[in-house]
Amino acid sequence: MSKVPEGDWIVGVDIGGTNLNVGVVSFEGGLPLAVRRERTEVIRGAKFIVDRVIRMIKDSMREVMDENGVGREAFAGVGIGSPGPLDRKTGTVINTPNLGWRNFPLRDLVQNAIGLPATLDNDANAATYGEWWMGAGRGVDTLVGVTLGTGIGGGIVLNGELYHGANDVAAEIGHMTIDSTGRKCNCGNYGCLEAYASGQAIAARAIEDLDSGVGSILPELAGDVQNITAETVFEAVVQGDPYATEVMHDTAKFLGVGLANVINILNPEVLVISGGVTRAGDHLFVPLRAEIRRRAFQVAEQACRIVPSDLKGMAGIIGAVACFKREQCGRV
Amino acid sequence: MSKVPEGDWIVGVDIGGTNLNVGVVSFEGGLPLAVRRERTEVIRGAKFIVDRVIRMIKDSMREVMDENGVGREAFAGVGIGSPGPLDRKTGTVINTPNLGWRNFPLRDLVQNAIGLPATLDNDANAATYGEWWMGAGRGVDTLVGVTLGTGIGGGIVLNGELYHGANDVAAEIGHMTIDSTGRKCNCGNYGCLEAYASGQAIAARAIEDLDSGVGSILPELAGDVQNITAETVFEAVVQGDPYATEVMHDTAKFLGVGLANVINILNPEVLVISGGVTRAGDHLFVPLRAEIRRRAFQVAEQACRIVPSDLKGMAGIIGAVACFKREQCGRV
Repeated sequence: MSKVPEGDWIVGVDIGGTNLNVGVVSFEGGLPLAVRRERTEVIRGAKFIVDRVIRMIKDSMREVMDENGVGREAFAGVGIGSPGPLDRKTGTVINTPNLGWRNFPLRDLVQNAIGLPATLDNDANAATYGEWWMGAGRGVDTLVGVTLGTGIGGGIVLNGELYHGANDVAAEIGHMTIDSTGRKCNCGNYGCLEAYASGQAIAARAIEDLDSGVGSILPELAGDVQNITAETVFEAVVQGDPYATEVMHDTAKFLGVGLANVINILNPEVLVISGGVTRAGDHLFVPLRAEIRRRAFQVAEQACRIVPSDLKGMAGIIGAVACFKREQCGRV
Repeated sequence: MSKVPEGDWIVGVDIGGTNLNVGVVSFEGGLPLAVRRERTEVIRGAKFIVDRVIRMIKDSMREVMDENGVGREAFAGVGIGSPGPLDRKTGTVINTPNLGWRNFPLRDLVQNAIGLPATLDNDANAATYGEWWMGAGRGVDTLVGVTLGTGIGGGIVLNGELYHGANDVAAEIGHMTIDSTGRKCNCGNYGCLEAYASGQAIAARAIEDLDSGVGSILPELAGDVQNITAETVFEAVVQGDPYATEVMHDTAKFLGVGLANVINILNPEVLVISGGVTRAGDHLFVPLRAEIRRRAFQVAEQACRIVPSDLKGMAGIIGAVACFKREQCGRV
């Protein structure tokens, strides 16, 4: 793949509800260099988060310049992945309940602060494009990505292009209703997949159950019941805790319902699952695949590889870079 | 649009669980001529249905030849829309519980009997492509079609092309789980949209309720409670029957759950709904739109026109012709 005159390096930014990740990827692709990871600290407000991201970008660029003996002209720009819904054309985040952004001109704030062109896409779209470019779905025609984090995001790649829909809101897999009279979701709707299988939902369920006296190593691992997070649950699963294993099993079943729907609607070649929950390995994938087999059309289920991400948490950064390349250079 | 050398007319075949529809469409498009409509009579078996379809095709072609003073050379071929899952490349229906077909070489049976090239696509895909070519979604980039008949089918048009997925099973909207512990569906799964909002589901619910003593004009309209069909329910809604109106309202809500999921995943410009249920008009569309508004992302919901088919039940025939054109001539 040839280089563009604009530069040899592209910065990737992956904004999540819990963590901010920034790194630099070479134009030809590969794992990110000079990676920075900090807490999002949503509670400190919108401006705080943007300032932190801008500082992280500058740090990361500085490291690459120092290490490689290059100047600013070696950088083509910044690709940003952010929770949505958002408007790619204006670079504006429309509304993110988790981050407190509303009609927020994220792209231009970064662009002006860094002095390089920037692009904005949905965080889960970006991660999915990263899997297609460099990861578990490399080069396939039809790929769906599911990111299991604080919330549940999705991305769709069709014929090597991210599918955005009529106005950039496509692939909101987390807000698919799987139980029309079910649990209330943060989005206001009832019975969303995210209300059952997200990190937040897993932690909330464990805290509720343990408060009512279920036995588990979770309180010990977390220090206190109220400190339990999805990560604690994954850790307890790995250590063989029966209660945590049951939570994981139920989570996998709920996820299986949602992903069977995705398979019945999109009939993808590959479904890549990323996020901390994949650490649970077979504890997740065995019941997940069983539930999908039960619910999806057999021919569609058999055609679909269901795999964990192999980009070590870097899909968001790599994908944000891929989105930048696609938008600014017309190809990835 | 110019003509292809192969012929001026194309036969469209729309095979449903209840009715068989055949008609002839001119290469340039338009409403079908020489339309034949007969009952499917599933109970009489696979061979009976195919023989009936072949006879209907011959009848329909004969009428066009007589009326227009043309010969067989005026026909380019036959486009077939059939329930699936199916394999377009081999022209084989893989498995249709409703019709009793299993690895059934439908396309070649028709092709050999008629002596013209034939193509095979999913019935709901075909109907959706018909809406895109000549109907309520004419020329838009992103269109989802939903056919409410004996079952519930779906089709997806992206950038003017039918989206088929990895192996032709995409858009099975009817078998989306909306209540993971809900009603058993014909497909074996629990809580599918089709188990709540299909014609079969509507009729089954009415019969159950009336057996347990609910008051309604339905038994009178149908002659007997056991004869009630979805059509009877729509008729009773039009006549202002409160019970039938309640059934329609609930059906619209279930459908709203499923279509909100579709909107959150695909973010289409247009969603076309076809089938007898659209006769209920505002009794369907008002509660349906309200439920979608409650559940879908606001930006996605606002971007999507939700409209009834305007092809008068002919979308399946027209779309089967469009599929034939696309496959045999490379364009529609």
